[in-house]
Amino acid sequence: MLKWLLIFVPVTIGLEFFRPDAHTYIFIAACLSIVPLAGILGQATEQVAHHAGEGIGGLLNATFGNAAELIIAIAALQKGLYDVVKASLTGSIIGNILLVFGVSVVAGGFRHKTQRFNSTAASAQAVLLTLAAIGLIVPAAFHHLQAPSSVVPENALGLDIAVVLLLAYAAHLVFSLYTHKRLFQGKSTESNEEKHAVWSLGKAVLILATATAFIAWISEILVGSVQQAAKAFGMTEIFVGVIVVAIIGNAAEHSTAVLAAMKDQMDLSFGIAVGSSLQIALLVAPLLVILSHFIGPSPMNLAFSPAEVLAIFLSVLITGQVAADGETNWLEGTQLLAVYVILAIVFYFLPESASSY
Amino acid sequence: MLKWLLIFVPVTIGLEFFRPDAHTYIFIAACLSIVPLAGILGQATEQVAHHAGEGIGGLLNATFGNAAELIIAIAALQKGLYDVVKASLTGSIIGNILLVFGVSVVAGGFRHKTQRFNSTAASAQAVLLTLAAIGLIVPAAFHHLQAPSSVVPENALGLDIAVVLLLAYAAHLVFSLYTHKRLFQGKSTESNEEKHAVWSLGKAVLILATATAFIAWISEILVGSVQQAAKAFGMTEIFVGVIVVAIIGNAAEHSTAVLAAMKDQMDLSFGIAVGSSLQIALLVAPLLVILSHFIGPSPMNLAFSPAEVLAIFLSVLITGQVAADGETNWLEGTQLLAVYVILAIVFYFLPESASSY
Amino acid sequence: MLKWLLIFVPVTIGLEFFRPDAHTYIFIAACLSIVPLAGILGQATEQVAHHAGEGIGGLLNATFGNAAELIIAIAALQKGLYDVVKASLTGSIIGNILLVFGVSVVAGGFRHKTQRFNSTAASAQAVLLTLAAIGLIVPAAFHHLQAPSSVVPENALGLDIAVVLLLAYAAHLVFSLYTHKRLFQGKSTESNEEKHAVWSLGKAVLILATATAFIAWISEILVGSVQQAAKAFGMTEIFVGVIVVAIIGNAAEHSTAVLAAMKDQMDLSFGIAVGSSLQIALLVAPLLVILSHFIGPSPMNLAFSPAEVLAIFLSVLITGQVAADGETNWLEGTQLLAVYVILAIVFYFLPESASSY
Repeated sequence: MLKWLLIFVPVTIGLEFFRPDAHTYIFIAACLSIVPLAGILGQATEQVAHHAGEGIGGLLNATFGNAAELIIAIAALQKGLYDVVKASLTGSIIGNILLVFGVSVVAGGFRHKTQRFNSTAASAQAVLLTLAAIGLIVPAAFHHLQAPSSVVPENALGLDIAVVLLLAYAAHLVFSLYTHKRLFQGKSTESNEEKHAVWSLGKAVLILATATAFIAWISEILVGSVQQAAKAFGMTEIFVGVIVVAIIGNAAEHSTAVLAAMKDQMDLSFGIAVGSSLQIALLVAPLLVILSHFIGPSPMNLAFSPAEVLAIFLSVLITGQVAADGETNWLEGTQLLAVYVILAIVFYFLPESASSY
Repeated sequence: MLKWLLIFVPVTIGLEFFRPDAHTYIFIAACLSIVPLAGILGQATEQVAHHAGEGIGGLLNATFGNAAELIIAIAALQKGLYDVVKASLTGSIIGNILLVFGVSVVAGGFRHKTQRFNSTAASAQAVLLTLAAIGLIVPAAFHHLQAPSSVVPENALGLDIAVVLLLAYAAHLVFSLYTHKRLFQGKSTESNEEKHAVWSLGKAVLILATATAFIAWISEILVGSVQQAAKAFGMTEIFVGVIVVAIIGNAAEHSTAVLAAMKDQMDLSFGIAVGSSLQIALLVAPLLVILSHFIGPSPMNLAFSPAEVLAIFLSVLITGQVAADGETNWLEGTQLLAVYVILAIVFYFLPESASSY
Repeated sequence: MLKWLLIFVPVTIGLEFFRPDAHTYIFIAACLSIVPLAGILGQATEQVAHHAGEGIGGLLNATFGNAAELIIAIAALQKGLYDVVKASLTGSIIGNILLVFGVSVVAGGFRHKTQRFNSTAASAQAVLLTLAAIGLIVPAAFHHLQAPSSVVPENALGLDIAVVLLLAYAAHLVFSLYTHKRLFQGKSTESNEEKHAVWSLGKAVLILATATAFIAWISEILVGSVQQAAKAFGMTEIFVGVIVVAIIGNAAEHSTAVLAAMKDQMDLSFGIAVGSSLQIALLVAPLLVILSHFIGPSPMNLAFSPAEVLAIFLSVLITGQVAADGETNWLEGTQLLAVYVILAIVFYFLPESASSY
């Protein structure tokens, strides 16, 4: 746990108040603050889940596991920065399955020649990942196919598909927490944390609330500085959203998944990486679409940019193939990373105009 | 068997004669008439196949299993309604693998935790499905790629690819009926019907001929009323073709496949659903392209609309993934259904202009 | 070995000197000369590799296995015929996995009902193939996505991705020659040639140098005649590049892979076909991009035409599916061939303008 990074929380807030024009420093400090806050938020969620018992606890973990991303996205949503929202969702989806899982497979593969995992559970998650990709490909295709582009059917379509994706996520929860929970046992992050002391429910809820409040605050500052910081770095806002913000937001998942892979717990590692991507695509993205009808300046649709859709589609394709045979080795890990680097290069060079609708 | 629906056959014909302007009622009555007629046609084909012996019988079943769809499509072809033809083919392909197989997997999955099937046979059929998708993707891509769009090479290309697809289907028949028939045993629908009495050959042929004649008649009435009925329902012709007509035309396969899945005969269930899609893509579609050179007002090419091609591609992709590991559970069924619903939503909202070439 | 075809080497050179306008004859003679020269080059490489010992030898084989294609492509590169370069690379990639492997599976399948291969090695190669396809899809997509098309970022992107692909190939070599070499044993072509006498190192190097020199010479003549010959045949340059040149350049791999399949050595057969495609996509193509910055009239990027990208994507997709279950039968072979024929039909009909950028 990089708890000492918490020092950047007051630094960020201080900069925002006393040096509001130092966008680059504010952005960097905000990024560094999110890392430990997201970790603490995750830990507090698990502790609350522990008190809630197996069923509800699993549900809490599965629902709030990406609370940090959700909060960041809501901050961007309120300002109508829909391109940034979609970029950071895309970045989370591809970052978890390519970067987090890729590094895990390489790290695990250096210690263990071949690593195996339960292919039934992995296959179920890979199919869900394909469904999630379809749910994001289709609205983008629709955007291009309807010749006289009109906003009304696109919002209706986005809302309808969001509901279908939420139902699919709900079905997945029933499957993994209830009807087929055996398949997923040993996959909960709790097993990994057993040595840690158990917090009292009060303490857990208090920490959860405090971390949420701070993340919300820092997210707003982060989102406010993205535009200027990107310009200062000579990067596009989209690149910062897809690559930089996503790496920051998923740092906690990252370290847990890599540690699990090194201990040859590939089910756990795969579950964390893919589960996180699924949560973003099937829970966070649809929720944001629905929320945008209430809190944004105008409804957000589900139509991601062509580059984002292609990135998600290709990531899901190769992850499905890697997972299909139920075993991994270091070479497959490097291939996931190679795809991540190729996509990062594209987002780096892609002009701003091409990455938004 | 919903034989009582046969009452709608005279109703349809009566309406067509005495109330030719009641398009909506005519359309509904015609749809309801097709359901039992298609069922009887299928049953009569099986009975004739039974008399013809194993080899020729299998061939008959494999060739005329989708006779109803073929007849409906020919009726539309004669009127030059190529968009409706392609929409109903698309609807049959995705309807069988997503809706019919999806409902089967869910229905079977509620009774049986995990259902297994012969992955060699399933894999062979999944690869054929991919070939079929490629056969439909490529002409559509060609249509977009050849900058100065000219009709002549497109028709030649369509005809050539139609021949390749027919040869691929023939190879599949040799494989499943001759060189590797063991793999497909227990997959014939006959095994499911053994309790039923065997008809005399004369009776079977007579019923076959009668059902065909009525389907042809009703199909013409159906096709004649599609345009007006769609308008009355506030739907596009394409939506009616892709979703409504396809559900009607496949009702018989639907009930057989679901019953098989509930009895844990997943090979049979998968074979019916995927076999039916294969027959449409590799036999019916190419035959219609070739036929169009003789009976339609102008040759029909194989270039499906972008939305149709995308729908077929995504359906085949996720079905292949579900079938790959040789086992299914209820969650995978709900995911197939979710994809079907997402595609149906798209076809519902897609403006008429965008869904035709 | 079709060594008698060497007679066409002097014929080609003679025609080029005395009948420089007989483009069609020159083209045909040059094609026929390449077949035995490529075979001899491959054999000499193996002999040198044999002397170099297992590690370095494997590296030599893996690096120079497609030397003939590389030399032909360099000849086209020097003349700035980038469309021809990309067409022949595309043709090699799809020709090896669809035509060479397709014929192998059919030939093997006629003798053996079901053929099995090591699915771990096959799966690793199939994932690499997907990575290679992504490495070629992404720059093409980038070309279309960046609205105000500018050359500078596209060349930078091409160069960066080329480096990533070379690193991925290097990782693959470490995997197959060092960390996981057991998986690939029995897959070296040497095992197939053991009956042949071993050449002295001097003889092997001399033959290697001579064959290289002649291939370089003939390649230049071949490339110089492509344009006129294609016109004379009524074919586009692209069709000649994708289909004709690729069949010629891969004749040697072709016969080895088919013989291996007939002996039921499917690992060897798959390794030759897929390994050759991988070498083209992950080694030859990136090398050419880098070389083009030094020897061509202007830098070549990695942006293949949409038709080429689609062809590569679909080929990789169906090959991955065929390889996924670790077994093949003749039907799967015919399906690979059907896809090859469909793609060949497209390249035949595609107008010149549509197949280049």
